[in-house]
Amino acid sequence: MMNIIRFGDVPLASLLIRTVEKSGVTEAVRDIIADVRARGDEALYEYAAKFDGASLSALEVTPAELQAAYDRTDEAFLAVLEEAAANIRAFHSREKREGFRIERPDGTYMGMKVTPIENVGLCVPGHTAAYPSTVLMTAIPAKLAGCRQLVMISPPGPDGTQPDAILAAAKIAGVDRVFRLGGAHGVAALAYGTASVPRVDKIVGPGSAWVAEAKRQVFGRVDIDMIAGPSEILVVADDTNDPAVVAADLLSQAEHDVLATAILITDSMALAEGVQAEVERQLSLLPREAIARASVENNGRIIVTDDLPAAIEAANALAPEHLEICVDDPAPYLDLVRNAGSVFLGKYCPEALGDYLAGPNHTLPTAGAARFSSPLGVDDFIKTTQYTCFTREALESVSGDIALFARREHLEAHARSALVRFDRDAVAREAAAQESVKREAVT
Amino acid sequence: MMNIIRFGDVPLASLLIRTVEKSGVTEAVRDIIADVRARGDEALYEYAAKFDGASLSALEVTPAELQAAYDRTDEAFLAVLEEAAANIRAFHSREKREGFRIERPDGTYMGMKVTPIENVGLCVPGHTAAYPSTVLMTAIPAKLAGCRQLVMISPPGPDGTQPDAILAAAKIAGVDRVFRLGGAHGVAALAYGTASVPRVDKIVGPGSAWVAEAKRQVFGRVDIDMIAGPSEILVVADDTNDPAVVAADLLSQAEHDVLATAILITDSMALAEGVQAEVERQLSLLPREAIARASVENNGRIIVTDDLPAAIEAANALAPEHLEICVDDPAPYLDLVRNAGSVFLGKYCPEALGDYLAGPNHTLPTAGAARFSSPLGVDDFIKTTQYTCFTREALESVSGDIALFARREHLEAHARSALVRFDRDAVAREAAAQESVKREAVT
Repeated sequence: MMNIIRFGDVPLASLLIRTVEKSGVTEAVRDIIADVRARGDEALYEYAAKFDGASLSALEVTPAELQAAYDRTDEAFLAVLEEAAANIRAFHSREKREGFRIERPDGTYMGMKVTPIENVGLCVPGHTAAYPSTVLMTAIPAKLAGCRQLVMISPPGPDGTQPDAILAAAKIAGVDRVFRLGGAHGVAALAYGTASVPRVDKIVGPGSAWVAEAKRQVFGRVDIDMIAGPSEILVVADDTNDPAVVAADLLSQAEHDVLATAILITDSMALAEGVQAEVERQLSLLPREAIARASVENNGRIIVTDDLPAAIEAANALAPEHLEICVDDPAPYLDLVRNAGSVFLGKYCPEALGDYLAGPNHTLPTAGAARFSSPLGVDDFIKTTQYTCFTREALESVSGDIALFARREHLEAHARSALVRFDRDAVAREAAAQESVKREAVT
Repeated sequence: MMNIIRFGDVPLASLLIRTVEKSGVTEAVRDIIADVRARGDEALYEYAAKFDGASLSALEVTPAELQAAYDRTDEAFLAVLEEAAANIRAFHSREKREGFRIERPDGTYMGMKVTPIENVGLCVPGHTAAYPSTVLMTAIPAKLAGCRQLVMISPPGPDGTQPDAILAAAKIAGVDRVFRLGGAHGVAALAYGTASVPRVDKIVGPGSAWVAEAKRQVFGRVDIDMIAGPSEILVVADDTNDPAVVAADLLSQAEHDVLATAILITDSMALAEGVQAEVERQLSLLPREAIARASVENNGRIIVTDDLPAAIEAANALAPEHLEICVDDPAPYLDLVRNAGSVFLGKYCPEALGDYLAGPNHTLPTAGAARFSSPLGVDDFIKTTQYTCFTREALESVSGDIALFARREHLEAHARSALVRFDRDAVAREAAAQESVKREAVT
C-alpha cells in the first residue's frame, strides 16, 4: 500500500531514487568495450549470442528486411505511428535554431553558425522494453536537425530478429541504418566503429544499466545525451480530482520498472486516502501487477501538504522526470515550475499522452537531472561554431589592449601575435630587450 | 623544427593529440572525492596544504577581500577587463533563448519554457595558469542566463591568496562566492557540498588532468560542460600571408602547454618554408621558449595541400578548437566549415583576439569534440522544460490511439490512464476480461 506522509515528516531527498549502482557493471562494461575495439565484428557476433541468445547471420538489417517488416505491420498501428510522428515533428520543428551575426559599422563581424552533428547513434531497447515510441522520439529530432546519418541499434530476440513495430517506426522516422545490437557492445561499436558498424559522433537513447554505463565510459570520445535512470512521475492534485484517475496515472509509471517511482502530492487528505485505496484496487487488475506493486510498495509515496504552492516547491526540489499538475486552472502553477522534464497540465493530460502522441519528447532527465538538463530535442543533434572577422583598423585599435591582457597572463606569444601585424620591429625590439634581460639574469 | 608534410602522406588522425590519459589519476581522484564527501571542510583544508602548499584560515574569500583585491588592481588593467567584459556580454546576450508555445484552435496548448540552472560552479585554474580571462568567459554567460548563484573555485598560492587580477575579474563578472580551492577536491566540494561550500547543479571551466577527471567522475550527479584537453590551433593560409604573422599565431597556442598542438595547412610550399624558418627565429625570442619549442617539435606540423578547399576539409576532419582562415576573402570558406570551435577569419584576426577581447567565448571543445559539442555559452547555463495541456475533448479524440499504441508496447496501465477519464466501466470491463484470461491461463 502507498504510504501517506505529512509533508515535512521525511526529508524530500529520500523520496526519489537518485543513484542506482550495480556492482561489477563498470568493470564488465570496460572489458566489453576493449574487446569490441580489439576484435570488431567478431566480438559483436559473440555478444549477440551471449546476451541475446541470437545466432546472427548479419549485423545489419537490409532495406528489403526493413520494408518487409513495415509491410507486415497492420494499417491501424501504422496510422497511429504516422500520427505520432507528425505531432513529434510539429513540436520539435519549433526547437530549430538559427545562428546569429553581429555586424559593426567598421566592417568587423562576428557570430555563431549552427551545424548538425554528422553521424548519430540511436539506442533503442529490445526484449520486453522494445518501444517503437522510443524510435520516433530519438530519430525525429535528429532528422529535423539535419544529421547526415542516423544509425540505430536495437537488440535482436533469440530468433535473430527485431520486432516489426520497431523496424516500421525506424522506417517512418527516416533512420538510415539499423543494426541488431544492444547493450554495452552496441554502444562500443557506435563509439569506435567496426568493419560493419559506422563510428558516430554522438550516442543517444535509453537502455539498461549496461547501456548507461557504456555511454558513460565512451563519453568524451563521443558525446552522449544523458544517463537515463528509472522512470518517475510526480502528480500534484487538489481535492477536485477523481481518485481513480490519479491512481491510474501513478500506475502508468509504476508498471515500467520495480525501480520506477510514483509520488502524489496533494493538499487533500481525502484525495490521499481515496488514491491509496484506488491504487490497491487497480493494481490487482494490471497484467504487470508484480512490477507495479513492487514499484509502489518500495518507492511510492503520497505526501499531504498544507497548500498547492508548497507541493510545487517540493516538485522543484525533486526535479521529477514527469510532473502532472491536476487542477482546473494549471497555468499559474506552471509559472512556478523550475525543475521538471515534462509537465502535464490539467485534468485531461495523463503522462501517457506525452509518451506517445502529444508531440513533446518522452526522453527526459531522470534522477533529479532536470535541475540541469533538458528533454531530448533538436539541440542534442546540433553544435555551434563561433566566428570572428576583424578589419586591419579594428585589430589595430585593440592590439595594445590584447597585448596588455596577454602580458598580465604571462603569455608573451599571445601579445606578439596581436602586435606583429602592425609593427614587426616593435615585436623584435621587445623580444631583443627581453632577450638581453634573460642574458643578464644568466650572467 | 616544424615538419613539412605533403597532404595525404600521413593519416589525419595522427595529427592531433586525441587522448591524454595519465595513469593513476582515476583512482587518486576517486579517493579524493570520497574523502571530501566523508570529511567535508576538514579534507579541503588538508588538500589546500598538500596541493597548494597553503595554510588557509578560511576557505571563502570575503566581500571585503574581493573589494580590496579590486582596489589594488591598476586602472589600465581594470579598463581592459571592463572592455572585454562588455564585448563578451554583447556577444553572449545574442545567445539568449526564449521558449515557445503552440496553441491550437481547440484550446490545447504545449510548449517549452527556459529556466536558468540555479547554482553553477566555475573552475578557474591557478598558479601559472591563473587567467582572469577565464573568469570573464565562464561567469558572464552564466550571469546572462540568470543563474541564481555563481560559485567560483580557484586554487590559492602558497601564501593562501589568489591573484588580485583573478578576484578583480570575479568582481567585474558578478561572481557571487569565491573559494580558495582547486583541483579534484574543489570539484568534489562543488558536486557534494560541504559546511562551507554550497552544492551546485553544474560545474564548468577548464583545469588540470585532475580537474578534468574529477568532473568526469561527478558527471551525472551534476552536469559538466566538457572535458577540456590541451589547446589547439589550425591555421589555413594561402601564399599572400606574411610568414612572420602566421608563425606568431601558431606560437601563441604552442606557448600554452607542451601538449598544445599548432598546425599550418597551406597550398603554398613557399609559405610553408617561410613559416618553418620564422617559427624557429621567433621561438628563440620567447619567454616561454621551452614550452613552445616542445609543443612545436612534438605536435607541430605544416601540411601542404593542392588547394584551400582541401585544407578546409582537413580542418573538418580534425575539428580543431581554433581555426584561422588567413585569406583575403574568407567568407566562402566559412560556409565550408562544419567542425570547429571558433573560427578566425581573414588576415587581421589572430586567435589571441578571441582569447581576450572580441566577445565570443574562449572555452571551446578540444580533442575533436567540435564534431559534437559547442563553445561555452548561455546554453550551458539554462535548461528547458516541456509542457502540455489538453482539453477533455482533445484527449478523448486521441485516447483510443494512445491505448492502441500503449498496448502494442504491452503497457496496459498506460492505456488505462488514457481511457479512465472517459469510461471507468470500460477500463474495469477490460481489466476483468484480462483477469479472467489470466485465471484461465493459470488453471
